Formats: sequence, structure tokens, C-alpha cells
Amino acid sequence: MSELRQNLVTKEWYVIATGRARRPDDFVRRKPRPHLPRRSSRCPFCAGNESLTPPEVGRVPADGRWQVRVVPNKFSAFSAEGRAERHVDGLYRWANGVGVHEVIVETPRHDLIPAQMSLEQLRLIMRMCQERFASALEDPRVSLVILFKNYGEAAGTSLLHPHSQLMATPLVPTHISYRVEEARRYYDEVGRCVFCDTLSIEAGEKERVVWENDGFLVFSPYACGAPYEVWIMPKRHTSCFSMTTQAELDSLAEALFVVHRKMHALLGDPDFNYVLRVTPKDERYGHAFHWYIKYMPRLAKQAGFELGTGMYVNTTLPEDNAKYLREVKVPVS
Amino acid sequence: MSELRQNLVTKEWYVIATGRARRPDDFVRRKPRPHLPRRSSRCPFCAGNESLTPPEVGRVPADGRWQVRVVPNKFSAFSAEGRAERHVDGLYRWANGVGVHEVIVETPRHDLIPAQMSLEQLRLIMRMCQERFASALEDPRVSLVILFKNYGEAAGTSLLHPHSQLMATPLVPTHISYRVEEARRYYDEVGRCVFCDTLSIEAGEKERVVWENDGFLVFSPYACGAPYEVWIMPKRHTSCFSMTTQAELDSLAEALFVVHRKMHALLGDPDFNYVLRVTPKDERYGHAFHWYIKYMPRLAKQAGFELGTGMYVNTTLPEDNAKYLREVKVPVS
Repeated sequence: MSELRQNLVTKEWYVIATGRARRPDDFVRRKPRPHLPRRSSRCPFCAGNESLTPPEVGRVPADGRWQVRVVPNKFSAFSAEGRAERHVDGLYRWANGVGVHEVIVETPRHDLIPAQMSLEQLRLIMRMCQERFASALEDPRVSLVILFKNYGEAAGTSLLHPHSQLMATPLVPTHISYRVEEARRYYDEVGRCVFCDTLSIEAGEKERVVWENDGFLVFSPYACGAPYEVWIMPKRHTSCFSMTTQAELDSLAEALFVVHRKMHALLGDPDFNYVLRVTPKDERYGHAFHWYIKYMPRLAKQAGFELGTGMYVNTTLPEDNAKYLREVKVPVS
Repeated sequence: MSELRQNLVTKEWYVIATGRARRPDDFVRRKPRPHLPRRSSRCPFCAGNESLTPPEVGRVPADGRWQVRVVPNKFSAFSAEGRAERHVDGLYRWANGVGVHEVIVETPRHDLIPAQMSLEQLRLIMRMCQERFASALEDPRVSLVILFKNYGEAAGTSLLHPHSQLMATPLVPTHISYRVEEARRYYDEVGRCVFCDTLSIEAGEKERVVWENDGFLVFSPYACGAPYEVWIMPKRHTSCFSMTTQAELDSLAEALFVVHRKMHALLGDPDFNYVLRVTPKDERYGHAFHWYIKYMPRLAKQAGFELGTGMYVNTTLPEDNAKYLREVKVPVS
């Protein structure tokens, strides 16, 4: 019999249906990725092609050859110009699409896959992400900033050059406000952060822990929808990514370094998304929310049941996934 | 500049970003589907292979050659046996995976695509769907029944034989309870069903109407996330699919007949999902909710932004989509 599990943090239910048991091997990509050149003359994100992008808004190092570069998205979903306006006309409600949409070009090299990124490079990326995150928060029109990475076609990108994205919206989507509300309800009831409680249970039981360092716990959530999904969560209560210290950013880079490599070794360079789960800007000084990264290999497709119920069927057991991932040894150099 | 639109029914926000204007042709499948035989000897849903499925739970006609057949899903996500039990142990919450999971085999033929289904066949399917829906509601362990169809690989199915599915869950997922709550709030505020109000606006403005008959309005929702998404909504206030009359089911079959053919003509046999949006069983006699079918061609992929915010970026304008779909003429025979 399958089991339904409720995530304590989001109150969402997931179906854990392991009847057709899926081992890691069942998910390994059948076709390897195409061979890529170190540099592509037509790629706007390759070193040497800087003129193909809008003017850069961030880079490290400040002078000379860049290692990480940030540019506005040429096909931005949100406009950098214009006012944040909400309109209500009878039953219509709309808002101007103002906000921020940037691309973080993670390396000058065209061909690096996530599992090949150096620890040093990931540190630079995380620092740059935080810098741009903080900058977006300063925009008075912005209500929410999110950061994410799409890797591979199943994850919704056809762009090959290593990159992640930052988007800032002028309002708070229901998906976010519902979970913030749940976190606040928990806090009101027991006086503690639901994420801190989750961390302490997971760290204590160890069964779903994949890896940890001083700053971060990587674990398979008890209730989650994607096979091999992991959460990368700061151990210190931090409501907003902007409040993470430089030392913690280095710890985060290390966690990502390890997760990328473990996923690669176990699942064969899977397509994945990661998203930074955050609280809306106005609530970033609250006690109830705690930021984290949700890292999801895209091994299963969303079909009618998921679209109709918002409930995901996970054909793997989080405890097994954690064990498999834990057993892949990745030296942190 | 893009526009953010809020759906009145769900309160969800969508980004309508038509900067890179996408015409219907941009979405047409590049490769045609593989040629299928009328009958496949290994397909458990083909006529003649009935012994390959679990014992049938429904069929029409009752005797002789069946036209529509319903069988329990061999790889069921929910178990037909067992008790509905909820468990709370400290911070863990789980439930037994009991419920219903059936496959509606829509025709004995292996090779029919949705746009080739006859009106008569669609009538039989809709009647059978309602019969099974009502039967699932009678199960005391069931809290919610949903019906959906996955067509094509992008819609999450690799099964080629025409089929749809019915699933019944022992609890109400948050995704459903949130939208029921919103509908109830609207009803409490203005004393009317938010869906009935939406119907009356759409029917009055006509701009987003795709098609209609006596029983149903087909329209592109003002705020929606999938290119060419349409809602098929009963004109009479009906909270639950089980309360739809036989005449209305025939109207619904006609609406589906037309929608399948319009999508096929405009977008070239696109992969799609449709899901029946319903209220939980315990609330099916309420005044606030109104069932409908959400029909979504799967033309875009869900990436990090959607996963992180629950907010979809639609690269098409619902008003344009309605116009294109309206202009495809489909004779109802």
C-alpha cells in the first residue's frame, strides 16, 4: 500500500508509491549530453562575446577577465522600467509587470556541467547571487526575490552555457503566501520556527540526512514529490538569504559542490532545478520563516493527477534516496 | 511590458509576457506522431486482450463488444483495500494510501487520437466517467475524486491507447482546499458563486469565448498559465460533476468534441492534459463551488521560476488564443 505523507513545513501531501520500486539506475539518462566546445562563438554568455548581452550589472573580479558575470535577461519577463501599479476594474485584477530579471553567468566556459564546477567557482557564484539578491531587495517596487537554476531540457532550459537566474516580482504569489502563513501559524502555536524544528529532527534521526557541514544540512525531506529531491538548509535560523554571512555562503558553496557531484555520480548528470525558497521582502525580519534551497532532479513528469490535485506521486522512498546519496563519497577539496 | 493577471477564482497570479510573440504556428509539433495499428497484440487496453487487465469494474454496452471499459489501474497509486487512517507521531503526519485508481479505456481501438473520436463515443465516455465518479464518491474512505486525461509524452503518459483516469484520495490536498476557501470567501462577501460571475462576464464580453452550446461555455481564462488553456464550464450552477444531468453530459461531450478538433487544427495534435476541477466530497452540496474542466495543451515547460513561485509565465495572450481557436470552424455532427 502506498503512503501519504504531509510535509510539516508546507502542509502539502505527497503520495509515496514505491510499488514499482525505482532504483537509482532506473533513472539514469539513456543518452549522454552532446559534446560541447569550451567556447561557442554564438553564445552570448561566452567570454569574448560580452557585446551580445545587455550591459552587465555585476561581475567578479571587478577588473580583467571575469569569472562570474551578471546581465539583465534579454527576454525579461519583468521590466526594469515603470511603476508598480495594481489595477482593479470590476472583477479584473492586474498589475504592471515591473521587476528584475537577471542572468547569472556562472563561468566564462561554455561546457562546464554542474558536477565539474570547482569549489572556488561555486563560492564566487554564491557571493554574486547574494549581492544581486540584496540589490533586488532594495528596489522599492519589489515584493519577492527568487533565485533558481534550470539545468537541462527537462528542467525547462535550452540554454547550454552554465547560468542561473534571479527574478524579483512586484507582488507575492499565493504559492508563497500560503506557505508563509503555515509557517507563521506554527510559530504562533509552538513559539518555534518550523524549519528549525525540522532541522533538529532530521539531524537527530539521521535517516534522511545526505550530508552536512558547519553551516548547512542536506536532507531528503520526509514528504516530498520529486525522486531524489533534497533540501539544503542553513543550520542557523536565517529568514532571508540576504542575511547569510560570507562564511555561510562558503559553506553553501561546499554543499552545492557535494550535491552536484553526488547527483551526477548516482543519477548520471540529471536535469534538475534548484530554487531558493524565501519569504516575501516585507516579512524578512520575521521569526517564522527560514530560507533554504530545494534541489529537484527532473526525473518524473507532472501529469493530470499532479495538475489536478497539486499532490505529487513520488515513486521513491526519501529514506532510500538519502541512503543512496549518502553512500556516494565526494571529497571536498 | 508584461502584465500580471490575477485569476478571480483561484487568486493565483500569472505573468502574461508576450514580448516574444508566439503565434499558433510556433507551437506546432515538428514531428508527427508515430503511425499506430488499429490493434496491438501487447496492449492491455485493446479489444481481445481483456485478460491482461484486472477484472473490469464498468463497461458499455453491458453485453457484447464493449465500446468503453473501466478497469482498476494495475499500477495503482492507491489501494482499494484497507482502512483510511491518519497518523500523527510528533512532527510526522501520514495516512494510508487507500482510495480508488481506475483507467477508463475510451475505445477498443488503439490508434484513435482525441480529434478522431466520434461525438457518440465521447458521449459514452462522459457517461461512464460520471458513473465511476459517483461510484467512487460512495466509498466512505474517499474525500476527493478527480478525473483527468494525459495525452502524449509531454503530458506525462507513455501509454498510447486512448484512456483517461479516475483517482480518489482519502484526504483533501492543500491545492484544493485553498481554492475552495477562496470560492467560499467570495460567496460570503457577495452572496454569489465566483464561477457563475465569471461565466456571466465571459459570456457578456465574448472576447475570450471560444465556443458554447446550451450547457457549456468554453473560454480562455483571463488569467491562466498555459498557452491555449481553456476552461469548459457548465452554465448551470453545479457544485459537483455527479449532479450533472444526462443532457448536460451530452453537451459536455459536444464541447470536448469541438475542443479536441480545434486544438488539433490549430496546434497540430498537441500533447495535453485535462483535469476535472472539483470540490471535496464533503462540500459537494455547498453553493460556493462550481465544477469545470481545465484543458491545457502542454506546449511549455515548468522551470525554476514556476517551481519557486507557483506563478506561471504565459507567453501568449488569452484574448488572442480565444480568437484563434474561435476562428477554427468545427461542424458538430
